[in-house]
Formats: sequence, C-alpha cells, structure tokens
Amino acid sequence: MSSVSFLADTARVDSAAIAPLPASRKVYIEGPRADIRVPMREISQSPTTTSGESEENPPLLVYDTSGPYTDPEANIDIRRGLFDLRRAWIDGRDDTEWLDGPTSEYGQRRAEDPRLATLRFDLKRTPRRAKAGRNVTQMHYARQGIVTPEMEFIALRENQRRQTLSTKYSGTAEVERILGHQHSGESFGARLPEEITAEFVRREVAAGRAIIPNNINHPESEPMIIGRNFLVKINGNLGNSAVTSSIEEEVDKMTWGIRWGADTIMDLSTGENIHETREWIIRNSPVPIGTVPLYQALEKVKGVAENLTWEIFRDTLIEQAEQGVDYFTIHAGVRLHHVPMTANRTTGIVSRGGSIMAKWCLAHHEESFLYTRFEEICAIMKAYDVAFSLGDGLRPGSISDANDAAQFAELETLGELTQIAWRHDVQVMIEGPGHVPMHLIKENMDKQLECCDEAPFYTLGPLTTDIAPGYDHITSGIGAAMIGWYGCAMLCYVTPKEHLGLPDRDDVKTGIITYKIAAHAADLAKGHPASQRRDNALSKARFEFRWEDQFNLGLDPDTAREYHDETLPKDSAKVAHFCSMCGPKFCSMKISHEVRDHARQRGLLGTTDEETLKRGMSEQAERFREEGGELYREL
Amino acid sequence: MSSVSFLADTARVDSAAIAPLPASRKVYIEGPRADIRVPMREISQSPTTTSGESEENPPLLVYDTSGPYTDPEANIDIRRGLFDLRRAWIDGRDDTEWLDGPTSEYGQRRAEDPRLATLRFDLKRTPRRAKAGRNVTQMHYARQGIVTPEMEFIALRENQRRQTLSTKYSGTAEVERILGHQHSGESFGARLPEEITAEFVRREVAAGRAIIPNNINHPESEPMIIGRNFLVKINGNLGNSAVTSSIEEEVDKMTWGIRWGADTIMDLSTGENIHETREWIIRNSPVPIGTVPLYQALEKVKGVAENLTWEIFRDTLIEQAEQGVDYFTIHAGVRLHHVPMTANRTTGIVSRGGSIMAKWCLAHHEESFLYTRFEEICAIMKAYDVAFSLGDGLRPGSISDANDAAQFAELETLGELTQIAWRHDVQVMIEGPGHVPMHLIKENMDKQLECCDEAPFYTLGPLTTDIAPGYDHITSGIGAAMIGWYGCAMLCYVTPKEHLGLPDRDDVKTGIITYKIAAHAADLAKGHPASQRRDNALSKARFEFRWEDQFNLGLDPDTAREYHDETLPKDSAKVAHFCSMCGPKFCSMKISHEVRDHARQRGLLGTTDEETLKRGMSEQAERFREEGGELYREL
Repeated sequence: MSSVSFLADTARVDSAAIAPLPASRKVYIEGPRADIRVPMREISQSPTTTSGESEENPPLLVYDTSGPYTDPEANIDIRRGLFDLRRAWIDGRDDTEWLDGPTSEYGQRRAEDPRLATLRFDLKRTPRRAKAGRNVTQMHYARQGIVTPEMEFIALRENQRRQTLSTKYSGTAEVERILGHQHSGESFGARLPEEITAEFVRREVAAGRAIIPNNINHPESEPMIIGRNFLVKINGNLGNSAVTSSIEEEVDKMTWGIRWGADTIMDLSTGENIHETREWIIRNSPVPIGTVPLYQALEKVKGVAENLTWEIFRDTLIEQAEQGVDYFTIHAGVRLHHVPMTANRTTGIVSRGGSIMAKWCLAHHEESFLYTRFEEICAIMKAYDVAFSLGDGLRPGSISDANDAAQFAELETLGELTQIAWRHDVQVMIEGPGHVPMHLIKENMDKQLECCDEAPFYTLGPLTTDIAPGYDHITSGIGAAMIGWYGCAMLCYVTPKEHLGLPDRDDVKTGIITYKIAAHAADLAKGHPASQRRDNALSKARFEFRWEDQFNLGLDPDTAREYHDETLPKDSAKVAHFCSMCGPKFCSMKISHEVRDHARQRGLLGTTDEETLKRGMSEQAERFREEGGELYREL
Repeated sequence: MSSVSFLADTARVDSAAIAPLPASRKVYIEGPRADIRVPMREISQSPTTTSGESEENPPLLVYDTSGPYTDPEANIDIRRGLFDLRRAWIDGRDDTEWLDGPTSEYGQRRAEDPRLATLRFDLKRTPRRAKAGRNVTQMHYARQGIVTPEMEFIALRENQRRQTLSTKYSGTAEVERILGHQHSGESFGARLPEEITAEFVRREVAAGRAIIPNNINHPESEPMIIGRNFLVKINGNLGNSAVTSSIEEEVDKMTWGIRWGADTIMDLSTGENIHETREWIIRNSPVPIGTVPLYQALEKVKGVAENLTWEIFRDTLIEQAEQGVDYFTIHAGVRLHHVPMTANRTTGIVSRGGSIMAKWCLAHHEESFLYTRFEEICAIMKAYDVAFSLGDGLRPGSISDANDAAQFAELETLGELTQIAWRHDVQVMIEGPGHVPMHLIKENMDKQLECCDEAPFYTLGPLTTDIAPGYDHITSGIGAAMIGWYGCAMLCYVTPKEHLGLPDRDDVKTGIITYKIAAHAADLAKGHPASQRRDNALSKARFEFRWEDQFNLGLDPDTAREYHDETLPKDSAKVAHFCSMCGPKFCSMKISHEVRDHARQRGLLGTTDEETLKRGMSEQAERFREEGGELYREL
C-alpha cells in the first residue's frame, strides 16, 4: 500500500475543479415536482454596442455535467459524498429492499479488513437490491408505460429550455435575429423532435433505442440518457494501472473530467485497491460510472486468465453492482469460434477484456462463460438496474483490421445478446471500434444499427489512421465526429497518450475537449434542435469584438484567454477591435464593419436600423445585378 | 526597424530544424536523367524476433518536404540560399531572358535603399522573365505535349517507389505478408492510378486538374503537384503582423514547418520589411511559396483600402513574381454586387483580402480592379509561371454563414475566371472555406468541382463548429480530413491560435501534424495506392512491441517518445512487452501473442510457421462453426 497517497480523513476536493467557469452560474430548471431540479450552466454575455446604442445579448444556457461541483452554494465534502438526490424516487417505487450489507463474498471481506480502514470511504448506508421477483430497470418501467422522475429529469435536461427564448420573442424573424438561424442537418434516420417530452424519453427507453444508466445504488447521479435521438454524449476513462497513479489522482481526474464535459466516466483501474477507489469515485460522482468487471476478476486470480471462473466473475458483478456501478462492459460476444478469425490480423486482439476471454476460451477449449451464463448475468443486472455495455472484444486495433470478419461476427453475436437482455428488460448499449478509415465508418454504424436493432452504439474513436502516436485524440476525434453524425450515441474519448502511457490531468482535459468538439459537430450536422445556438452566439461575439464573451462561450475559456494574452496581454486588448493574428490594419472583421458603416454614413436607406439596412442592401444588390452599373447610385 | 533582430551577415539556420529525424536517412530516387534526383526519407526498422528467429522489416520510404535541411551531406548556409536545382531545366527550355534587375518600381527602390543593407539577402543573380511572346507555364508545356523535368520529378515523388517492394517479393501473398493489405477506398471520382507516370502528370496539368506551382525565379524549389488525383497536400502559413514577430522568426518557422510536412508555405507577413523577409524565405525554401499580394499593396497605401490602385497592385505582382513567389492568392471573385449579399451574415466578410476589396468597391462604386484587369494579371502570371490561388473573399466565417448565397455566387465567379486563366495557360487552384458543418462539406466540394471544372480545391479547414477557440486545429482538422477525402487537393492548416493570436513555433508544429493526419486519413479513405503501408508498418511494430519503430514510423517521433518516457522512463521499458497504460498483466497485445503461442505450443498443426498456423486456425474455426464442439479436439 506504499503507493497510496490518500487517507480518508484528510481527503479534499480538488479546488481547481470546483470554481464556477468564467461568467457562468449554475441555474436549475424546475420540473413538474419539487424534487426535480435540473442543473444547467448559464453563460452571461455583455451587450452589443453599435453607434452608441446598446442591445442586450441573452445569456446562453448549456448542458452541464459538472454536478454540484461548480455550484458555490453546494457544500462539497468528498468524505461524505454527494447528496443522494434520487433516493426519494427509488423509495417511492417501493420495489427495492435494503440489504444488511454487501452480499458479495469479496465486498464483505473488504468491508471487514482492518488494514483498509484508512482508505475506506465511510458509507453510512447499506446497498439496495430489487425485492424478490421485481425488476427495477428503467426499461422495465418504460415498457409498463411508467414515466419515472428520471425520465422527467432527462426531458428537461435534453431540452435545454430551448422553447423559452423562442416564446420570449415574437415571431420567427425576431427569434432568428437574436439566436441566429440554424441549418437543417442530415440525421440519417435519427428522429430529433423539436421538444423532448418525458413521454418521448419513455418510448425511446422502452424500445431499447436509448438507455438511462443509473444503478439504484448510485442515487447521487443526475439522470442522463444515451441514444441517437438525443444529444451525442462522451465518456472519459480514468484508472490507475499497476504501474502508476493513486486513488486521490483518480478522484481528481473524475471531478476534472466532468468539469470539462464528460457525460459518463469509466473507471478502468487495475491496481491493488480498486474496490476502495471505486467507492470514493461513485460516492462523489454526479455522472454514471462504468467499469469492466473482468479486470477486477482477473486481479482476484492474480492475473492468470485460465483461472477465471464464473463464480469469481459473478461475485465481482454483485460486488460492483452493490457499490453503484451504472454500466458494465461485458465482452460476452467473444465466442470460442471467433478467436481463430483474428489469426490473420495485423494487430490480433487489442481489447483487454477480449484478449483475456480469448485466452480463457482456448485454455479451456470451452465457450466463454460470459456467453453461456448470459441470462444469469441479466438476472443480476435487473436487480440493481445496471446497464450492459456489450464489449467489442474483437474491435480492430489497426486500420488494416477494420471491418473484418472477426469484428462483424462478434457484432452479430452482440445483436443476439441484445435480444436476450431485452427479454429481461435490461438496458443495453453496444461498444464499437477502434481503428477504422473514414470510408468504412458508415458501414460500421449501419451494420450496428441493423444487427442490434437500434440499441445505442458507444464507440472508441474510431481512429482514422495509425500513423500519429501522440496525437490519437485527433486521429480519433475525426472518426468520432463522423460516427456521431452517422448515429453513434456516445463517444469514448481518446487522449494524446493513447498507445503510449497513462493520461495525466492535462491529457484528460485535452481528450474531453476534443470529444466535446466531436459530439457537438455531430449534433450540428444531425440538425439537433438549437444545437447551433452556441455557435451563433460565439460567432456573433467574435464579430462584435466581444473578446470576453468569445472566450466564455467556448468549450475552454481558460485556454482561449491564455492564448490571446500570449501576444496581446494588456487588458485594453480585450476591447480592441483586432487581434495579434492580423493586427489593426488587416482585421477583416474590422473592415467588414467599416463596410457596413460606410454604407450607413452615405445615408444609404436613411436609417440606422440594422434590419432595414440589411434588407435595403440586398434589394440594391438585386437591382444592380439586373441593371448593371453602380450599386448605390440611386440613393 | 527596431523590432528586427536579424542581420544578414550573422544569419544562421535553426539547428533544431536540420537534424535528420530519428532512424531516418535522406535517399534520392534517380530519375531518367542525372539531374533529376528526388529526395525521400527512409525510415529503418528493427527486425521482428519470434521464438528466437529474426525476420527483417523493410525500411519505409516516405514523402519528404524538408528539402536539403535534413540531409547531413548538405551544406546549409541561409546567407547563400539553397542550390538552384531547377536552373538547368529552365535554361534548357530557352524561353526566358535574364533581366538587368527588378523591373518593378518598388523592387528597384528597395534594392537601392542603403538603409536596408543590413537586412537584405545578398542575391547574386537577377530575375528572369519569359521572352517576349513566350509563355513559360507548366500548363503551357503540358498542353503542347511536352513532359518537363518538373513533371518527371513529380512522377517519381508521387510514386514513392511503391513498385520496388512489390517486385522484390514474389507474388501477392508475399507482398501482403510484408506490407499488409490495403482497403480499396472510396475515391468519389478521383482517378488514382497504380503507377504515376510523367505522362499522367502532364495530362493532369494540361487538363487543369492539377497545378505545379514553381515560378522560374524560384529555381531552388523541389517540384510538387496539387490535384485530387495525387496525394493530398497541406499548406502552412507564416507571417509576422504589425503587432509582433521578426524576420528571423519567420525563416525559422518556414524550416520548422517543412520539417514536419508542409508541402507549401504561405508568407502572409504584413509588417515593415516584408519585401526583404520574403526574399530570405524564398531563397531558402525548397517548397513553393504563396503570398497574398494585396496585403503588401495595402501597406504601400498606408492601409487605406480606398487608395489602392491597379498600378500599385500591378507593380506588387511584378515585384513578387520577380522574387520567385510560386502562387498568388488573388480575390478577383469579390464583385461589387456580391458585397450586399453579406449584409445578413452573422460574421460578414472574414477574408482579409475579401474585406479590403469589398471596401474598395463600395468606396469607388466600381467593379473590383482584380476582376476588370484579370486578363492583364494573367499576362503577368504566365511570364513567370506564377499560379493563381483564386481567393475566397466571401468564405463563411461562421457555421451560420456556411454555403450561403454570397459564398456560392463568388464560387461561380471563380469558375468563370478559371476559364479565362486557362485560355492563357495559367495554372489555377481555387480557395475554399472556412466554417462549414459536416453535413454541408460535400455540397461545397461538389459545387467547386462543378463550377471550376475540376481545378484543384484548396481549403482552409473547414472548421466544423465555432465553439472551441483554442482548439480550432481540431475543429478544422475534422473538416479537412473529410473534404480531403471528398476531393480537396490541398488543405490549409489552422493552428490552435486561430482567432486568438499569432502562432508560435509549437503552434506551427501542432497545426502541421494535425493537417498531416487529415491529409493522410483522406488518402487512406480515397484508397490512394500504398497509402496504407505506413499504417500497416506502424501497427505491426506496435503489435510486436518494437517501441522505437513505433515512435519513428509516426508523424512526430519526438512527442511519441516523450509521452512514453513520462510514465516509463527507463530504457528497459523500450523493449518491455507492455506500457504504463495497461501495465504488464493487462496488455491485450501481450495476451494476444500468448493466445497465438498457446495454440503453437499445443502442437497445433505441428508447425512454427506463422502462415501455416494462421491458415490452420482459420480452417479449424470453420470446422468448429459447422460441427460445434471444441476447437482443437482433433489435434
């Protein structure tokens, strides 16, 4: 335990991760009942000043994954964990029971080990489980026609109060003037309603087209949804390895990751105290947590894959389900007969889970227990509402291996397993590649939709080339944006350290921002309602030299401000009508304003009203085009 | 001149920019004549060691833009400039004459100004120009059926000696075993022959589908080609602004940019001594140099757009053509009647050249002199072989303005101008946007191909969202990869400082690497012959834990090595069969090898021959699939 620099009684939240973002305040959208309060971030803007007149710019509301951390009103003490906001909702359904304590053999052993006292999160409550014969998944409720508070919460969250502004101003022209217009998009079959209702959420979950990962033992989580008819989501991974890093670092990475926009976090730790690390992370996480239980199971057999058993794996599922893990990556699609299909590959099997199971299958000459015991796994999942993230154990690890027979054979198996899980009303998403050249990405997406009957796709990248180690956030950001556009529901980030080492804090941030870009570019291209509002607001600020607004409306205000300050550090430069890139004489935006001013000064149209001016200029242009000659001669 | 930290007699090449890249040596492909020697970079690899046996991995040949700088044999003295390798070819055509000195009024004035002595590059020769009545463009030669040495050079360069390896090994299976297979790609109509012949180059140039930018006054340049039936190219911008930076920095940025892969460099300087800076850059640049002459013309009228005249602009064209600029961005498509079409835009006119001309047009109530004098401009271009880069003065500066009427109206005008330039046998490429959401990129590309009759497209990005200032290399890298795939011939880089400030050295490198990724991802997706070879080699090295090879085969070996060393700094880690990301127990690649070893040790197929083993495993899999049961039971 010498590597652990973390003691429970001195644990503190990372101060850099809790300050509100610049010009931002936490607001809550009130729901249909008092205990549904959906957090959003409101970014304020300064007014536009033209010719001495000033016009307000409305604040921009953005989706906020940071939970209570960025709310100065919240009293954060990571030793106590976050408020369990979903507790009353779970209580209200009256289909769960409190257990006396962990029911897994391993969970009990860790709870009783006195040597772990200094590491342990001091949890006051015991785990919950479905009452005998009950099914507590959101899919189960949805299929019975029940709209849960979680679904209500999500409807408000996905809507981003986009109707408010539209109704505040009268008529389409006024709305467009304030918010800018939006391109119509190409959604490739995704259905993106103007308004997200709780009933729409329910229907999507019932159909399996979306999942709400929220274990009943993670009542601290703010409900979110993953499905292609909603905003594209991103996942950030964290996790120590046997080689380096500590519990404290991992908790910090979680709060850091959600600050910049991670919608879910996967804890991929593989070290000594992963049970305790996980507890700290879940208790302090407002976003769903995913894991790969196989990693811990392998730890339990000291890394010897052949020694894995169903019993050990099963105990691990229960252990983690009772801690509150929201989704499990399970590589049940790696079947014995698939393994030899990887023999001709350039990079064999590159999924850790996939390679472990392949080794087990070959060693025992037996079908994978993840496959043969799949219904038993479903029975555990539905007792806690853990969602499946069916792992792509045979994903391609190189451009060469993309879309090959092994990958697609596994995908077909994942489709079969999806149907089984759905028979149990267990929520499912499907993991995807990997490394795929651009022209094969759509085939991958379409094949997934077809095989898995529109269960949400959750992909790593894909990386669109192998030749840039050190820049795989970019090689994969390209593929992520594209597959998000084509219909992928959640994008698993890749950091600059991919293939080379464990990401540090800066790498986590770079990975998250890159993937927020990819997800947003995808929303824009799909034509997600109101997604262009942020682009429009930022570009308007840019054109009007509202530098602070430009920084604050961006995904990373700190870096934008820092870059600007490197060359023009004085505060006066923040109001300057140029930047160091072009300097004052060559600023096209400045000249562009002069062009408009010029027309105005010449008494063109005798008005200072912007709208009338623009309309008049357009009419003049038309006349000019028809008649030839000078533009403004008649004025 | 106090800001200039550069004196001609002490000028030195930046030492960081001249060392060969790791494990790389400069090789020259010999052409059909002794003075055609095409530089390439050869990356050596270590052998593969399996079960004690060792097998060679062939060195990888890659396209090399760094010129003599990375050749230790070359004697670099930037005070003397590079060797003028094309001089004999130009002499041989006997269609040019040496002038007595600069013929532009401004060029003469600068040459005679004693105060510039300490800044001036000491050029021993005078400029050349076409003899009266002659046309010295590569397009002109091509249309007469002449294959120039430049075309021969390019054919060898684009081929990358890809036939050599294919013939060295016998039969397709052997080639595929060594080099890996390649996906077939989707080229969207691009024609990508297996072998690039000089005749193919000639035909493409004659048809206007590709350009060879090489001014007869830039004989130091290594010929390269821009067209969608060739490798996708990238451009890096440099240039001081009135606000900051010096001559020395700009020369350093050029050598730094080509080291990492810039195929051309645009000098966008706008300061005091841009004439002298440009001379230093051209004399030391092995890649084509582009400029926007309007910027300097505007300097000459002290930044007052209205005071620009055709005479000043014409003198600037001649001044720069006689220095050796290879392509001119000229915003001749911004017509008077287009200007009002921008009035409803979110971000007006964001091209510097476009906004200057718009202002001029409105101030004078006259059609742009760039448009009315276009044939006179062509006459200058063909006397030096300067190529047009027809500027997109009305490109969208925000997602909101993408693919609007103003942009497409200008594009149609650019199509008309292309036809005029082609009547003069002047080479043309077309500049493109800008900011475009993903779903509108293909429309942009298709419209350009249609309007401009397949003249090469040269785009900035496009940026696929506006919301990430500080990360616009990424927002635009996504769009660049996609438009490159769809048919764009050259991608103009965007650095992380875009919209915020002037890029420094690190930003230049980040921008270049990002765009090399985009260009290569595009080549892969198009199915460019042999483009997958580098991916295959790198992935094979990765799978075989040849760490050094993995670093060296990548676009940026230094960064990859540095990232790896951050967590596993010891040299022994370079041969370790795992990395810090997963650690030794969880390395999927390690386990994947164990899976193969396992099968081998069980005497499966009684062979250690990899090929037979793989074949056997596949057959077993097939049998297993048909019969069910255990995989290896019959062995």
